[in-house]
Amino acid sequence: MTGPVRNMVKMLICYYSRSGNTRKMARLIEKGARPTGVEVDVKDVKDVTPAALLKYDCVVIGSPTYYGLMSAEVKALLDKSIRYHGRLDGKVGGAFSSSYNVGGGNETTIMAILESLLIHGMVVCGDPDGDHYGPVSIGKPNRRVEAVCRRYGERVAELAKRLHG
Amino acid sequence: MTGPVRNMVKMLICYYSRSGNTRKMARLIEKGARPTGVEVDVKDVKDVTPAALLKYDCVVIGSPTYYGLMSAEVKALLDKSIRYHGRLDGKVGGAFSSSYNVGGGNETTIMAILESLLIHGMVVCGDPDGDHYGPVSIGKPNRRVEAVCRRYGERVAELAKRLHG
Amino acid sequence: MTGPVRNMVKMLICYYSRSGNTRKMARLIEKGARPTGVEVDVKDVKDVTPAALLKYDCVVIGSPTYYGLMSAEVKALLDKSIRYHGRLDGKVGGAFSSSYNVGGGNETTIMAILESLLIHGMVVCGDPDGDHYGPVSIGKPNRRVEAVCRRYGERVAELAKRLHG
Amino acid sequence: MTGPVRNMVKMLICYYSRSGNTRKMARLIEKGARPTGVEVDVKDVKDVTPAALLKYDCVVIGSPTYYGLMSAEVKALLDKSIRYHGRLDGKVGGAFSSSYNVGGGNETTIMAILESLLIHGMVVCGDPDGDHYGPVSIGKPNRRVEAVCRRYGERVAELAKRLHG
Repeated sequence: MTGPVRNMVKMLICYYSRSGNTRKMARLIEKGARPTGVEVDVKDVKDVTPAALLKYDCVVIGSPTYYGLMSAEVKALLDKSIRYHGRLDGKVGGAFSSSYNVGGGNETTIMAILESLLIHGMVVCGDPDGDHYGPVSIGKPNRRVEAVCRRYGERVAELAKRLHG
Repeated sequence: MTGPVRNMVKMLICYYSRSGNTRKMARLIEKGARPTGVEVDVKDVKDVTPAALLKYDCVVIGSPTYYGLMSAEVKALLDKSIRYHGRLDGKVGGAFSSSYNVGGGNETTIMAILESLLIHGMVVCGDPDGDHYGPVSIGKPNRRVEAVCRRYGERVAELAKRLHG
Repeated sequence: MTGPVRNMVKMLICYYSRSGNTRKMARLIEKGARPTGVEVDVKDVKDVTPAALLKYDCVVIGSPTYYGLMSAEVKALLDKSIRYHGRLDGKVGGAFSSSYNVGGGNETTIMAILESLLIHGMVVCGDPDGDHYGPVSIGKPNRRVEAVCRRYGERVAELAKRLHG
Repeated sequence: MTGPVRNMVKMLICYYSRSGNTRKMARLIEKGARPTGVEVDVKDVKDVTPAALLKYDCVVIGSPTYYGLMSAEVKALLDKSIRYHGRLDGKVGGAFSSSYNVGGGNETTIMAILESLLIHGMVVCGDPDGDHYGPVSIGKPNRRVEAVCRRYGERVAELAKRLHG
């Protein structure tokens, strides 16, 4: 006698990174998500096609803070995703960013990513503790950032499981 | 033989309104939400205490666009809600706004409300059709706004049911 | 006997456009700016290099609303402009957007452009009338949009003249 | 033989503060502004009437980060300032915020204040160095914050002098 069969929930963590900081954050978020039992892919944005987004229940996007917003490479993926507009409706989304300075545009970067995901009809969550809109690293991820990223990975994965598991 | 007992999901639509436009939007959102089977209260912000927020699974907040943001009365409720910080975590949130002009600050008002709700740890959804971040009325709600508000009420209620039903 | 020699103030209106709506807005803003006596160039973003930005006292950027933000092509110009970071400090900036819907992300697009320009140290102005953050067109520019764009062109040009004339 | 008589430029730094951190930031911004020769008043928001705003060429507003936005007390001043809508057009504005955490909503607080000031038609500037949108303090102002606030006070005052001196 078994309970209802549940879907294996799939999460994509998609990042752009030049210094490696945003990539490290992606890996830390993955570490937080995995123990929840979701299947996680971590990919450089150059290896992600708009069509690939359809396979996932949850898409978390990371970018360094470039002029207070995601990098053009990340934006290009979102622009091309219009081909599938409406088909990401109800999936879970998330965002994170690394930047050089406090007050350097990291929150506006995260909110800008979340705005794009909301326009796709996606579902996003904040955090009453940790970094409220999504993880921020000032420079290289330190211990604070490690905790915040793991926590975020877990929270977003749990939300995806409740909605799509 | 019955299925699992489900919780009755409770939604609060809380608004501030002077001209009556935002109140009308609240009533239209209610109309969209009710058929989903959630229990809906529609209240003027002056009749809502921070403690009352705890009773609901879903809180949707509407404000006219005052200098691109929610009115001070709505903000005062959010400021006082810090007393219960952490206890709204995981609830579903939403936002809507009426304003005088296109380009008049309505989207920034809605995003500002959503930012506050995210800081409470709440879960919000966008819409690939309709008004992406939340319903906007330019002046008195017209037929377009009626459709957008009903649609939003239904979408937010369905999300609340999936997470809290 | 003459007054002090004043600089000829140079304005760039730089746009990305596929449907032609944003290009039309650029031309309308130009019409508002010219009578103030500034020199105006209107250019497709593909014809603008980051180095070219240095020649202008004022840079106004327009983009259609793509997922609540400027298009990747416009963002790519801003990302590459980091090479001249600090050298746009004090120049006057501005932003405009065309979109399909009210509530469709047009204000967040404009604010995102302004955020990028602020990070360059630029000076921006709002408008107590008209479209507060910058001109918005819902679909094809109509008479309302024509008035709003001309007004914006004049206001931004006058500010540039006061600071750089 | 003297040059043209210039106006004495007047700046208001208006803050809300409970812990004292935002008040300290106000004083540091004042320190940066004074050496430029502008006249500076630093006032608690409870001592500022909307009518008083008319006397100043430059208004800089500071608030702690309360749910990613200015406090209700600051918002109430802005809401009441509608009585003078249009009469702050062209004045210089600025914003700053203190908050408990990185990623805690400080940038969205500053941008929200700037949005309100833009709707009044005010002129704002960013900074290519320092905190890009306006000074942020995480907790008690430290040396970094002291430098950033002084720099901001000077920059905003210099802009006000160029436009209104």
